Amino acid sequence: MANGYTDERDDHLRRLRRIEGQVRGIAKMVEDDKYCIDVLTQVSAATRALQSFALGLLDEHMSHCLVDAARTGGAEQDEKLKEASDAIARLVRS
Amino acid sequence: MANGYTDERDDHLRRLRRIEGQVRGIAKMVEDDKYCIDVLTQVSAATRALQSFALGLLDEHMSHCLVDAARTGGAEQDEKLKEASDAIARLVRS
Amino acid sequence: MANGYTDERDDHLRRLRRIEGQVRGIAKMVEDDKYCIDVLTQVSAATRALQSFALGLLDEHMSHCLVDAARTGGAEQDEKLKEASDAIARLVRS
Amino acid sequence: MANGYTDERDDHLRRLRRIEGQVRGIAKMVEDDKYCIDVLTQVSAATRALQSFALGLLDEHMSHCLVDAARTGGAEQDEKLKEASDAIARLVRS
Repeated sequence: MANGYTDERDDHLRRLRRIEGQVRGIAKMVEDDKYCIDVLTQVSAATRALQSFALGLLDEHMSHCLVDAARTGGAEQDEKLKEASDAIARLVRS
Repeated sequence: MANGYTDERDDHLRRLRRIEGQVRGIAKMVEDDKYCIDVLTQVSAATRALQSFALGLLDEHMSHCLVDAARTGGAEQDEKLKEASDAIARLVRS
Repeated sequence: MANGYTDERDDHLRRLRRIEGQVRGIAKMVEDDKYCIDVLTQVSAATRALQSFALGLLDEHMSHCLVDAARTGGAEQDEKLKEASDAIARLVRS
Repeated sequence: MANGYTDERDDHLRRLRRIEGQVRGIAKMVEDDKYCIDVLTQVSAATRALQSFALGLLDEHMSHCLVDAARTGGAEQDEKLKEASDAIARLVRS
């Protein structure tokens, strides 16, 4: 069943595997006593990759769950808006 | 006409006046040759205040414009979702 | 006495005046009921300007105070390193 | 030779292994179709863990390499200060 959702999930998993590889690469650099500044450059790259992944996931969430909740209205809508706001605040502050 | 919106706008303006005052206070510290680290502490506080303001404004935007667009659906919905995503990405990356 | 330090201070003050103007411009946009997303774009720009100012100030601090403390060594060095670390952590987390 | 440096390196490696585990856990959540918002919470936690790791590494770098360079002075000092500034800017902006 190769639907849109499955494709998105595969893409998410590919990105996460790549980030996991980046973190493992950073550990290898530390083991090999690589220069601090070079290690920090890779940490910044992994941090940005995690943020991009989060932004992509949030987009999807807003297009599906948040839109559905807005059409339902009421308490469901309020709850989903609150959840999304809190998640965005955590991303902005992390 | 003291409606909800006017109240929110007054609150926004109060917060912005306070942030403007924080930035002016930082300039005063620089003029008075205050210690760098103390100036940096105030810059971090002003940055956080701007982020909180942005998160509040975004909440409001999602509760009103984005919810309306979700109910309208179609191109209007897609456009508003794209705008909100881009604004969130700018906040996360700034 | 137009020495290097005075020049840097004038540059800092110019940048802070510009940021103060940006914040005042955002308040004007809110007063004029400008579109939320456009307001958020300006808030992100002001946040980035504050961060750039902070990074410039930190550079200067490291080139002067931190270098002096490193040459002095001992408790003075430890204290200045701790202060700089804490200021950097606040910037990264804000 | 269990010197201070080795201890620090072991601590770095432990933290990185934990972050790698966090990223793997996020992939597992995506595979199991966990709720987006819960996935985002874990992404924020992993991002903060990477930032804390980076701040710890930077502290160490400043206490050792930067202090040594400040005592050496000249081009060596300027180069190390520039490198550290650039690394800090990348952290603040990521």
